[in-house]
Amino acid sequence: MQELIQKIEHEGEHVGGGIVKVDSFLNHQVDPALTERMAKEMSERFRAAGVGRITRVLTAEVSGIPVALEVAGQFGALLIYARKSQSRIMTGTYYVAEAISRTRGTSSDLMIDRRFLGSQDEVLIVDDFLATGATLGALAKLVAESGARLCGIGCVIEKPAEGGRDVLGSVGAPVITLAKILFEDGGLRVVP
Amino acid sequence: MQELIQKIEHEGEHVGGGIVKVDSFLNHQVDPALTERMAKEMSERFRAAGVGRITRVLTAEVSGIPVALEVAGQFGALLIYARKSQSRIMTGTYYVAEAISRTRGTSSDLMIDRRFLGSQDEVLIVDDFLATGATLGALAKLVAESGARLCGIGCVIEKPAEGGRDVLGSVGAPVITLAKILFEDGGLRVVP
Repeated sequence: MQELIQKIEHEGEHVGGGIVKVDSFLNHQVDPALTERMAKEMSERFRAAGVGRITRVLTAEVSGIPVALEVAGQFGALLIYARKSQSRIMTGTYYVAEAISRTRGTSSDLMIDRRFLGSQDEVLIVDDFLATGATLGALAKLVAESGARLCGIGCVIEKPAEGGRDVLGSVGAPVITLAKILFEDGGLRVVP
Repeated sequence: MQELIQKIEHEGEHVGGGIVKVDSFLNHQVDPALTERMAKEMSERFRAAGVGRITRVLTAEVSGIPVALEVAGQFGALLIYARKSQSRIMTGTYYVAEAISRTRGTSSDLMIDRRFLGSQDEVLIVDDFLATGATLGALAKLVAESGARLCGIGCVIEKPAEGGRDVLGSVGAPVITLAKILFEDGGLRVVP
């Protein structure tokens, strides 16, 4: 997606260690119009890959929520965002899977209320980054535990060097990303 | 907003201590179409209260993000969600204010990158709940520190018994909520 590639080239900050900050448009400040265009592009590519009816779009809090909400809107589905920490009002029973965040240096449990996902559901997983695949793999485990069918995984930005696509190979669903960041000779190159 | 009132009446769970769970449509599972209708209603009421140009809609992660994103879309503004915890990629300089969460039983710092908010900005604060006003008050402090103009505060659900509206009285901007939950004789009553 050319508009996104240019955005990353102009506003992405390589802060070292393979981490690129895209706070100005993706995960702190968010452009609603760009988010909608990214969701449309992702949805069209899911449909081209054979995805039909979707009942739930699943993401993890926090930064996947805007684009996942818009993808859910495109499919007439409900959004579910897996919670990362226990709050006093989490009184139900939950599907739980562990995910390790490299950018935060922490491990956390992802939780989904069992009332909201079951064997009748057709699910897309949507997030901002495909890096190591740890968060997406944990979300895929939650979907498998619920008995729902995982129909596809979509992310805004992929960092192929971190091998997440291989980790997700076993889930048997199409993996779609809108831009890839390559690290070459200390610089960045962004490609479709 | 009648549709929202009915949703709270049918799906809201009073789990005790004045806490009502609305996980099925507001802060865990989210209906994109309802979210858009709530954002349109909120935006119309802001306009009726004299709100014109808006450049930024501000919320706190996590559960305010969907409705705040849609309100930002209505005004052609950018969304900013204040971060609650420090991540390894937060390398800039930030506005910081403390907020105490009653539902999580924790105190946290809300942070906004200084690059994204300044004296030229016209700001709405949007969140899911107006309860004690602690989070909203902290967001209003961040806006004041940046020199931006606070044009309004909008929340989906208000719990008047917790007095948040009084706390926010001093900020001098219209406060709009779409439904109020009253606790009466151990039961709930939901009103516009």
